[in-house]
Amino acid sequence: MERKKRIVIALGGNALGNTLPEQMAAVKITARAIVDLIEEGCEVVVAHGNGPQVGMINNAMIALTHEDEAQPNTPLSVCVAMSQAYIGYDLQNALREELLNRGITDVPVATMITQVRVDENDPAFQSPSKPIGKFMTPQQAQEVSEKYDYIMKEDAGRGYRRVVASPKPVEIIEIGTIRTMVESGDLVIACGGGGIPVVRQGNHLKGASAVIDKDFASCLLAKELDADSLIILTAVEKVAINYGTPEEQWLDQVSVSQARQYIAEGHFAPGSMLPKVEAAIDFASSKEGRTAIITLLEKSREAVQGKTGTQFVATHP
Amino acid sequence: MERKKRIVIALGGNALGNTLPEQMAAVKITARAIVDLIEEGCEVVVAHGNGPQVGMINNAMIALTHEDEAQPNTPLSVCVAMSQAYIGYDLQNALREELLNRGITDVPVATMITQVRVDENDPAFQSPSKPIGKFMTPQQAQEVSEKYDYIMKEDAGRGYRRVVASPKPVEIIEIGTIRTMVESGDLVIACGGGGIPVVRQGNHLKGASAVIDKDFASCLLAKELDADSLIILTAVEKVAINYGTPEEQWLDQVSVSQARQYIAEGHFAPGSMLPKVEAAIDFASSKEGRTAIITLLEKSREAVQGKTGTQFVATHP
Repeated sequence: MERKKRIVIALGGNALGNTLPEQMAAVKITARAIVDLIEEGCEVVVAHGNGPQVGMINNAMIALTHEDEAQPNTPLSVCVAMSQAYIGYDLQNALREELLNRGITDVPVATMITQVRVDENDPAFQSPSKPIGKFMTPQQAQEVSEKYDYIMKEDAGRGYRRVVASPKPVEIIEIGTIRTMVESGDLVIACGGGGIPVVRQGNHLKGASAVIDKDFASCLLAKELDADSLIILTAVEKVAINYGTPEEQWLDQVSVSQARQYIAEGHFAPGSMLPKVEAAIDFASSKEGRTAIITLLEKSREAVQGKTGTQFVATHP
Repeated sequence: MERKKRIVIALGGNALGNTLPEQMAAVKITARAIVDLIEEGCEVVVAHGNGPQVGMINNAMIALTHEDEAQPNTPLSVCVAMSQAYIGYDLQNALREELLNRGITDVPVATMITQVRVDENDPAFQSPSKPIGKFMTPQQAQEVSEKYDYIMKEDAGRGYRRVVASPKPVEIIEIGTIRTMVESGDLVIACGGGGIPVVRQGNHLKGASAVIDKDFASCLLAKELDADSLIILTAVEKVAINYGTPEEQWLDQVSVSQARQYIAEGHFAPGSMLPKVEAAIDFASSKEGRTAIITLLEKSREAVQGKTGTQFVATHP
């Protein structure tokens, strides 16, 4: 029997909604697109972001300390862990339901609590840049800064937000278990929110005040699982160069060397399309035959068939 | 090679501490006892309660709605899901560290988000009895009762608390995946907090406003995994009859028929020792050769060796 095509999907946290009712609606749409790929004969592993969700959970844990002074503040790594369950529970249910609705009864769905190790010397820790949680007044910002040692930054005139480091993922701690589950035919949800960020201290893993980029974590997951494709889902069907100008050009297939050239020319916005393109290049260049695709959720099936999306491939011989 | 002895351990949520620093200290002690059993040659699956933790998370999500009116209230089932990650993340780390400290490098540790189905016609839904979360004034109680449809009860003069149903577990949705992981040698943490309570609506699983008793969920897990032993950990080394009276007698080995007799005689406190004894009887009577043990965490190894704890066995022939 031919080996199934193995695909890692990176879902955006924003695409999962800002509230629970929004999430429950969003996961249904997501589930349809993912089960499409399973019907297509693919083996799928799902990773996802958690921007709005981990911010909300972090806010809730801080709100608790306002009402109950005996409660210590909850570290960000624990909030990330909770976001994996908050999202995974709904997502796995929507996937299970969609599979059953289509008569697919032999694909168990499971969410793994996943830790991802980062390097404590990662330069990202020296310049926290990723905003999380709600906007605050200067006074509120000063208060949490003093109380919890948070780094607060003014965000585009909209108020102050906490910023945290976004270090590169180095190792997926639970990769062995994830591999076992995938090999046995499970549809696995892993590395939620980029994974719970931890640093190694001897045999101990210590939570880090960081949020790992889910595109980089998904890329590492795809490499470790020897996936054939990494699909990074976003709000556009294809990646563009000269975006928003008269010279705008949507990319169908692009070699990694060409993509690197586009990065050098400054075509992609940092914090937005740039990390996705970087993760796509990293995966496509990591081993012969690997393809990374950036596209819309609704276009996943067509993209896997090579009909749309921007397909990143290793340099042509 | 002889099949390893398979053990399901039911840990109390109270034994995991009331705050995160307490939890981080508690999981270290727990990890030592569990890794003792692995050194003893056992295959271990860990289930745990979440009383204080799910209450805290529920309080945090309500506190968030006070600070941000756009936030809808979070259903209890989602709070249970979050508690599985909140506890599982620390517990799996402590287990991993203890294993590595003892040079055991071939036992991956993993936490599974687990849903447990209950029957929507379970009579427990008609008489919610399990208190969760913080104590409130009569006025606060009335407010949340009106706002969220919570059932509030006065609790022994200490104030009002929310009470929820505690229906019996019927089916562990992710049992297939848990079995795969256990068979492949993983140390699995599953059914946290008794499992996320869900009811079936066609192919859909709907979260229920309930908390499943972790001893009953652990019993179901042990039966489904064809475990040899179910160890229910509590605050005493053995179960007593005539507890706290001059006729007090600690039990070493007890047959299920004898134990049923003791229940009928009213020896065990409802909501405390009674559900543990009921779960122990259920497991020990479910198949020949199965033993249930009630003991202290620190006595787990000796109890598995048959040296202490109260051992529940099928009726002697």
